Amino acid sequence: MEFCMPIRVYIEDTDAGGIVYYVNYLKYMERARTEFLRSLGFGKTAVQDDGAMFVVHSLQADYRAPARLDDELTATARVMQLGRATMVFEQNVRRGEQLLCSGQVKIACVNSATLGPTAMPEPIRKAVQAFQTAGAKSEE
Amino acid sequence: MEFCMPIRVYIEDTDAGGIVYYVNYLKYMERARTEFLRSLGFGKTAVQDDGAMFVVHSLQADYRAPARLDDELTATARVMQLGRATMVFEQNVRRGEQLLCSGQVKIACVNSATLGPTAMPEPIRKAVQAFQTAGAKSEE
Amino acid sequence: MEFCMPIRVYIEDTDAGGIVYYVNYLKYMERARTEFLRSLGFGKTAVQDDGAMFVVHSLQADYRAPARLDDELTATARVMQLGRATMVFEQNVRRGEQLLCSGQVKIACVNSATLGPTAMPEPIRKAVQAFQTAGAKSEE
Amino acid sequence: MEFCMPIRVYIEDTDAGGIVYYVNYLKYMERARTEFLRSLGFGKTAVQDDGAMFVVHSLQADYRAPARLDDELTATARVMQLGRATMVFEQNVRRGEQLLCSGQVKIACVNSATLGPTAMPEPIRKAVQAFQTAGAKSEE
Repeated sequence: MEFCMPIRVYIEDTDAGGIVYYVNYLKYMERARTEFLRSLGFGKTAVQDDGAMFVVHSLQADYRAPARLDDELTATARVMQLGRATMVFEQNVRRGEQLLCSGQVKIACVNSATLGPTAMPEPIRKAVQAFQTAGAKSEE
Repeated sequence: MEFCMPIRVYIEDTDAGGIVYYVNYLKYMERARTEFLRSLGFGKTAVQDDGAMFVVHSLQADYRAPARLDDELTATARVMQLGRATMVFEQNVRRGEQLLCSGQVKIACVNSATLGPTAMPEPIRKAVQAFQTAGAKSEE
Repeated sequence: MEFCMPIRVYIEDTDAGGIVYYVNYLKYMERARTEFLRSLGFGKTAVQDDGAMFVVHSLQADYRAPARLDDELTATARVMQLGRATMVFEQNVRRGEQLLCSGQVKIACVNSATLGPTAMPEPIRKAVQAFQTAGAKSEE
Repeated sequence: MEFCMPIRVYIEDTDAGGIVYYVNYLKYMERARTEFLRSLGFGKTAVQDDGAMFVVHSLQADYRAPARLDDELTATARVMQLGRATMVFEQNVRRGEQLLCSGQVKIACVNSATLGPTAMPEPIRKAVQAFQTAGAKSEE
């Protein structure tokens, strides 16, 4: 089970090489993570009202083929590991069937004042877990 | 008749003031212009296959109220003046009924090699004109 | 008297037209405003520790010629009007003697919680005024 | 031997979490790579005049501590592996002694038309090699 989100490439996303500037794939992936959590009922997760926020702890990305101006892409998000304060997402950006960029992004929940790690809100953790379990079942 | 496009505010769009970074409204407006032209049947207008491209000649923007993380906005585009090589767009970014930012953006069609002005493709000019005329009629 | 700041164009600043993406000139101008205020002794002016922040109230920009990858540019800042809560900057981006982009940017000091206008810190206003007066004298 | 470049954090670099938006560290690292090559005598390397260009093949990044508005940072670049068409850079972003972000970025030289791999210009490869050798000697 992976969450999918359509992305259109605008001129703002490109660079003088005539292709999408490579850091912008990471923005596409973040939009997919955000919309995945929204689809579970949780908006405004990047900076939360109770003072928690999700930050990127680490990431890796592999670039296979470039996207170009006006392309219609799909950005995906799938939670691979779910901890008390962290989530590891596996993510892809595709154009049709073609994989353009794959990434692994580890997110940590931190206190926005101290930036120290803090348990993510329990309703979010449970909803992600339920989504994963549903996915595992549907794959049986 | 104005063209409308929904915009979601992501963390990438915000700044340390807790609001949308002001230059990003200009990106929202450009997406609306791009989608307006696409709705008339013209994709990839920013950099066209025949070597013409649309560039911004001048702009002005007024900021009334800030957008915030996770807001759902509407970006609009309406052609106010249509020349042989130029178009002037009147554009707004709104949250519901509230106007957040208004802008006027003059676009020029240029040759991508010389960057000198060139007449815009006739099919685009005609389609924009037809859209305006239809709008004027529907307002009678 | 205008404040000048060197800017190098990186790939991150360009777009698929092979030129600097037009909204990025506004970032260059903002860097020049920030460094101008820093040169007067005021850092961290965009979001200040006492809860005030400077936001852009309105702007206009004219694009004359494009900058390209690797260009060395100069961004300038000069205060044209100084109010209790606002400043109007006249700004240019040049490559050598050639003017690429000119802009006029009106900045307002606001309370970061309410976003309502508030008088700018008196030391900043006085330092800007002294800089202008010195400039006016040196031009006599 | 590592190449170092100063970076100032502007409001454009931050997000609503009050810290530097995480993808922007990758821009800082790219500026350091670009200036490293320029220091060896090679400007405009991102998109070269002869039709070659450097693109990012893959990267990983670890975020240790956040940078904030107005911080003065240092971005570093050091070539760890040098192939015929690729280079692997080890890079850091620091504030004073404190490491904020470390990354490993693999760059590939490609033909800008086909985007297929191509040997990097020999003068660039030799200059990087000489820089590395000088560094290895100075560490003896």
